[in-house]
Amino acid sequence: MDFKITNMPGKHPNILLGHGSGGQLTHELIDELFLKYFDNDVLNMGTDSALLDIPGSSLAFTTDAFVVDPLFFPGGDIGKLSVCGTVNDIAVSGAKPLYLSASFIIEEGLDYTILKNVVKSMAAEAKNAGVRIVTGDTKVVEKGKCDKLFITTSGIGILNKKHRHISSGNTIVPGDKIIINGSIGDHGMSVMSARNELELRADICSDSASLNDLIRHCMDASGHIRFMRDATRGGLATVVSELAKSHYLGVQLEETMIPVTDKVRGLCELLGFDPLYVANEGKVIMVVPENEAMMLLKTMQDHPLGKTSAIIGEIVTEHPGNAWLLTRIGGRRVIDLMAGEQLPRIC
Amino acid sequence: MDFKITNMPGKHPNILLGHGSGGQLTHELIDELFLKYFDNDVLNMGTDSALLDIPGSSLAFTTDAFVVDPLFFPGGDIGKLSVCGTVNDIAVSGAKPLYLSASFIIEEGLDYTILKNVVKSMAAEAKNAGVRIVTGDTKVVEKGKCDKLFITTSGIGILNKKHRHISSGNTIVPGDKIIINGSIGDHGMSVMSARNELELRADICSDSASLNDLIRHCMDASGHIRFMRDATRGGLATVVSELAKSHYLGVQLEETMIPVTDKVRGLCELLGFDPLYVANEGKVIMVVPENEAMMLLKTMQDHPLGKTSAIIGEIVTEHPGNAWLLTRIGGRRVIDLMAGEQLPRIC
Repeated sequence: MDFKITNMPGKHPNILLGHGSGGQLTHELIDELFLKYFDNDVLNMGTDSALLDIPGSSLAFTTDAFVVDPLFFPGGDIGKLSVCGTVNDIAVSGAKPLYLSASFIIEEGLDYTILKNVVKSMAAEAKNAGVRIVTGDTKVVEKGKCDKLFITTSGIGILNKKHRHISSGNTIVPGDKIIINGSIGDHGMSVMSARNELELRADICSDSASLNDLIRHCMDASGHIRFMRDATRGGLATVVSELAKSHYLGVQLEETMIPVTDKVRGLCELLGFDPLYVANEGKVIMVVPENEAMMLLKTMQDHPLGKTSAIIGEIVTEHPGNAWLLTRIGGRRVIDLMAGEQLPRIC
Repeated sequence: MDFKITNMPGKHPNILLGHGSGGQLTHELIDELFLKYFDNDVLNMGTDSALLDIPGSSLAFTTDAFVVDPLFFPGGDIGKLSVCGTVNDIAVSGAKPLYLSASFIIEEGLDYTILKNVVKSMAAEAKNAGVRIVTGDTKVVEKGKCDKLFITTSGIGILNKKHRHISSGNTIVPGDKIIINGSIGDHGMSVMSARNELELRADICSDSASLNDLIRHCMDASGHIRFMRDATRGGLATVVSELAKSHYLGVQLEETMIPVTDKVRGLCELLGFDPLYVANEGKVIMVVPENEAMMLLKTMQDHPLGKTSAIIGEIVTEHPGNAWLLTRIGGRRVIDLMAGEQLPRIC
């Protein structure tokens, strides 16, 4: 979910693309509007999935809208994304994803084959992730009133109460290590290279993947994972910046340790993007106890979705409330939320 | 939910507005695409909400996209609708609605005040219905790529296992009576009269309302309600037609018994609409045992949302698989699913 808690100044009379960026403007919208009016203790926790206590069980419940443009890109499509994204939101809560809903807003005139391919892709990814799409809705709007196809998925997972701390992150302590399950920026650069206006064929594949199996392996290996979050819109930078701010912790990343493929780095340089802020759709950031970091790194690397996993930083006592990057050339710079929108409609 | 089961012929290479009508084309899309590829026993049940068994509890889970145009109309707005619609889908399953998610797709440039008023309306209706909006998402698309604002809500309710038969309707028998909690067509005609292109000020108010309290009163009064469904897109006609087809039952409605206000009847005649097919957003159709029908009618009439409730028909042994209307002038005609789209973007 993307109703998260921060305190940002400012207000705009009209909605900007940046309000959908996952950055500062999105936070403003959430604070000034959604949290203010929907105000309740579950929402206010600001967890990735809502954690619900239903008599006899504890559930994770989440939703995401997908408006990616184009619908198909190397390594995925809007359908796959709509399943992975929601599966991952549940899995990073420490819950086991079980059921999804799927709601379609379709533009009149859309080629039926396109819709069919998207639906097939959703079905394949749901099977792959071991979840079932159990309810849905379809609306069609007049030609020109939406852009081909938007999908909103919601998901329910079952949560063992002993894992409730994972989405809150309230057991994190200085010295904890930060692990990622592979290279960053692949999804965003794949979508960018697939956009018609770009005459680039960069051959970059989206990393979109359901991470629940990888996460389950890690949770089986350790009962002490402190925190998880998938680094989607806004990238790795947004996850660590939010983590530092919301928990008043110091976060320190080492640039040389963060996996980025040469292709992604090259395209980012060409287009003027910082890979730290580029969207991923198959990357989880874990905060783990120092004494289990190597074991968990190995566990991740043994999984097909974690071969290039790396320890990329740690929680520090310095600069609480801020995330810093130790740069390749020995300097350091603050990692803040994006102010505007870098890549609209990346997911 | 609107993935329901029927068997309809035909196929179109492009998506038509009728694919979003709730009528025959929607059923085709669902059968040929969603049920085919998402195939699983929960989905295949075709209930309004998915009925889920999570260790220790039974849940109802549903989703709906709202694309109503205009965003504000007499008696409601897209925000109120997005809460009522999902609350009602859960309530007609016999479940108690507890939690909602809300996902926003916003057009760049939307006036912030509009969004704020919609959010306030959602918050007010959630409070009124006794549910909490616990998770959400926000996406912004470029100007011209969606029409102001689309909202998808999903909902979770807790279901007592003894009420599971209500959404399946598998205890219905001939002789059962059909009750509705008031007049039909008000929502659709309110939205029509609010559309800019119509220079009508018909002073018709949408019936949009959360029905969970009314339904709870009825369920408290009787343990034998056989079936419930809210009559939204496609109207009363679609509910009874689907009921007849999916259960191979005969349904007989009496036109003179069906409440329609003079204003709605007048506007329908003017515009050439059949009120039976016009959308409602605060109407539930109940199938109840004959010997409890009068008591349940009285229970409904005592509730603020059921003052003009009426017994409008019954389940018959004749014409299984079909719904018939005994007309005002003494004839009878079949009530079928809509073939195309009568009122696009009515919800």
